[in-house]
Amino acid sequence: MNQVPALAALAEWLTGHRARVLPADIRHTARRCLVDTLGVMLAGAQQPVAGKVRRIVAGEQGPSRLIGTALHAAPATAALVNGVAAHVLDFDDNCYAGFVHGSAVIVPAALALADAKGARGDALLTAIALGSECQYRLGMALENVLYQRGWWTTGMLGGVGACAAAATLLALDSTQCAHALGIALVSAAGMKAVFGTDSKPLTAGYAAQRGVMAALMAQAGVTGPLNALEHAAGFAALCNQGHWAAEWLRADSRHWCLREPGVDIKRIPLCLSSHAAVDALLFLLQQQPCSLAQIDSVVCDVPEIVRANLVYDLPLNAQQAQFSLPFALAQTLLTGDVQLRHLNDAHLQDERLRLLMQKVRYHSSARWQQADLMRDAPEGAEVTLCLRDGSSRSHFVAKARGAASVPLSDDELGAKFLQCSEPVLGAAPAYHLLNQLWQIDRLAVSQLLLFQETGT
Amino acid sequence: MNQVPALAALAEWLTGHRARVLPADIRHTARRCLVDTLGVMLAGAQQPVAGKVRRIVAGEQGPSRLIGTALHAAPATAALVNGVAAHVLDFDDNCYAGFVHGSAVIVPAALALADAKGARGDALLTAIALGSECQYRLGMALENVLYQRGWWTTGMLGGVGACAAAATLLALDSTQCAHALGIALVSAAGMKAVFGTDSKPLTAGYAAQRGVMAALMAQAGVTGPLNALEHAAGFAALCNQGHWAAEWLRADSRHWCLREPGVDIKRIPLCLSSHAAVDALLFLLQQQPCSLAQIDSVVCDVPEIVRANLVYDLPLNAQQAQFSLPFALAQTLLTGDVQLRHLNDAHLQDERLRLLMQKVRYHSSARWQQADLMRDAPEGAEVTLCLRDGSSRSHFVAKARGAASVPLSDDELGAKFLQCSEPVLGAAPAYHLLNQLWQIDRLAVSQLLLFQETGT
Repeated sequence: MNQVPALAALAEWLTGHRARVLPADIRHTARRCLVDTLGVMLAGAQQPVAGKVRRIVAGEQGPSRLIGTALHAAPATAALVNGVAAHVLDFDDNCYAGFVHGSAVIVPAALALADAKGARGDALLTAIALGSECQYRLGMALENVLYQRGWWTTGMLGGVGACAAAATLLALDSTQCAHALGIALVSAAGMKAVFGTDSKPLTAGYAAQRGVMAALMAQAGVTGPLNALEHAAGFAALCNQGHWAAEWLRADSRHWCLREPGVDIKRIPLCLSSHAAVDALLFLLQQQPCSLAQIDSVVCDVPEIVRANLVYDLPLNAQQAQFSLPFALAQTLLTGDVQLRHLNDAHLQDERLRLLMQKVRYHSSARWQQADLMRDAPEGAEVTLCLRDGSSRSHFVAKARGAASVPLSDDELGAKFLQCSEPVLGAAPAYHLLNQLWQIDRLAVSQLLLFQETGT
Repeated sequence: MNQVPALAALAEWLTGHRARVLPADIRHTARRCLVDTLGVMLAGAQQPVAGKVRRIVAGEQGPSRLIGTALHAAPATAALVNGVAAHVLDFDDNCYAGFVHGSAVIVPAALALADAKGARGDALLTAIALGSECQYRLGMALENVLYQRGWWTTGMLGGVGACAAAATLLALDSTQCAHALGIALVSAAGMKAVFGTDSKPLTAGYAAQRGVMAALMAQAGVTGPLNALEHAAGFAALCNQGHWAAEWLRADSRHWCLREPGVDIKRIPLCLSSHAAVDALLFLLQQQPCSLAQIDSVVCDVPEIVRANLVYDLPLNAQQAQFSLPFALAQTLLTGDVQLRHLNDAHLQDERLRLLMQKVRYHSSARWQQADLMRDAPEGAEVTLCLRDGSSRSHFVAKARGAASVPLSDDELGAKFLQCSEPVLGAAPAYHLLNQLWQIDRLAVSQLLLFQETGT
């Protein structure tokens, strides 16, 4: 074989960058991913499925914290448990490079190993940044084939990101890194069949676990197939119709996927397809406030994909509410925001909320057949607020706030973090942790206040 | 959905049979799989890759023994470590139902949980039998598409067998079993890209680990996709070209794959493709002994697949020797057998052995183009022993001893067990353990002498 295997090239890129100072914006993006993921992980750790997974590993011991509890486990186990917690609320970030939930796999893996090794925060950020970059570059190389074919990309690609982050913290050399990536890639699992079951967050956790294990295995000298991507019975052939674009994995590539396409961070705890409509409605309400009594209807014009994703007109439970445009807009009308605390079954019975949900209508007009609009506004919305006096006003939003091109400010991100973490940690500790996270570069990871003493 | 999901039907079959007394021959097949797998696992545990994997989990504690050592770990971890040990020598059993190494995944999983639960040996045998049967029925349902496509079936199907065995020991109900099987199936991983790397035995270990985890997850209430097999983005669609034959998974099926096609147990520690030729040569030598000096050449007529598998004419290390027809036959001429102790690099330098290897020739004649011959003797051989006096004699073997249709006797299986275990445990403990295994039905699993006190 004359050509360098793709994963060997990626490993060379990875170890090459480890020695350098990462660009400040890349480091800050990693810091933001850490803040966002830890917040949703703390909230997610309170969900039933996270408790079920913890129960299984309860007898184990180890150096890595199970976030939101006082428990510890081995690094790979902590990556599993924390990965489940990070994804269970579906409030974690996404990246168009690979169509993946990225940080929900990468951050738990990096954090678990950083915990175990007593690493400093700057090493954690480097691991998150380089792990993300490796995963997203692989995602770009595979284009969208994987997702469209039916694979759940978060499970399939997440292990590689987690592995690259872990390999960075373990300071594996280039050859070990390549073996680790090979082990991670041929161990990858994830099918969209998991949607609607606990196995969806579980698969994110498994990817984090496998990534950590792959790095530990390679460190111990276990070999993986270096040509796992391009092997005739390897990842591209079996899962991606043989397709992969080599340029994304070149060792000398200067592109940063963390810049372009960047990471999308969710502002509200709902399916991303509802976000642009919520933003459009908020704009209209801020421009010209009105009382609920004045409202006749809220009419949304959205792409077909949004209609296909948001299937619950009158949701009966929190999971359904996450996939309901009427809930998203009615809740916005009711309190001006959508927060985690609104996602509970009792609140969904609120008569005012249910009346407002019935005022929401949506359709998909011919405008969405324009290719350029679908490229610029794939989950966009035009919202028209119709008042009882016969007047109406409309606003169009192409991309919701939180998308990589319309990012949340650090303050908004901090507010989301507090929304997620205050109910778990209490207000003062949550605020203290947020401050720690913004200055993580100067702390040891072990100093982070990540648990509630009473948690199990 | 009107139809019962395939995995729900399989779960119903599984829980239905748990309540019954299994047929005596099925129980004995499970007993033989246990004897065979524990033997190769004890030998495999001494291999470098097994030690590397143990090093990673060394800090963990738990109730399940790491075979061949005095170490313990959590059940899923023990399943991983012991699964690697069971497959690393490639001396473990195979089944044509799915083209899988079956017991190397199922036995470690069952043993780890039986250890943790303090189960009795009869429960262990039931778990191995039903776990095997579930895996092999799924293998039949998927026909050979999976293997031919490039997936490594042992990794892809093994988790289901391990999960079914674990679910049996945990006494999961039918619904929990179905969820467990769903979790196992969507977590499956394995590509033939692992061949030639440590990731091959690692993938067997991972399958055992995932199977145990899936059962524990379902016991804790975690849900999997019940329709993981037939889902539009599920196992059959993504990995098996949409194909699966429902009849194999029907709850009322009376077929036992453990009877037909049955399990192939390797008699000698070499690629199966060399076994028939070795048997043919042994027959000729037993019929009419001759001295090495009398031999001019050994000529083999074998199918193309055998030539494709056995690629090393003058092997330089133990791994190459496992895939070398000249080694297999020269070693047989030299000592009348092929044992694990012959697979070492120093022995391969033996001048007598290397001279004998050069006397072996092989080709693939036109006879192998007959479809019925290839069906009856897919890895058959005709061996001609040519003496210096110009005389020659030939013998044809369709299937090697150890194949399900030409099974090893219990005594032969016991001899293989001792060959594998004596160097690890010592002669008397190995013999004692063998006797324990033959009467495992009447013992507690915890009574088995499975370790060497000094092992690490």
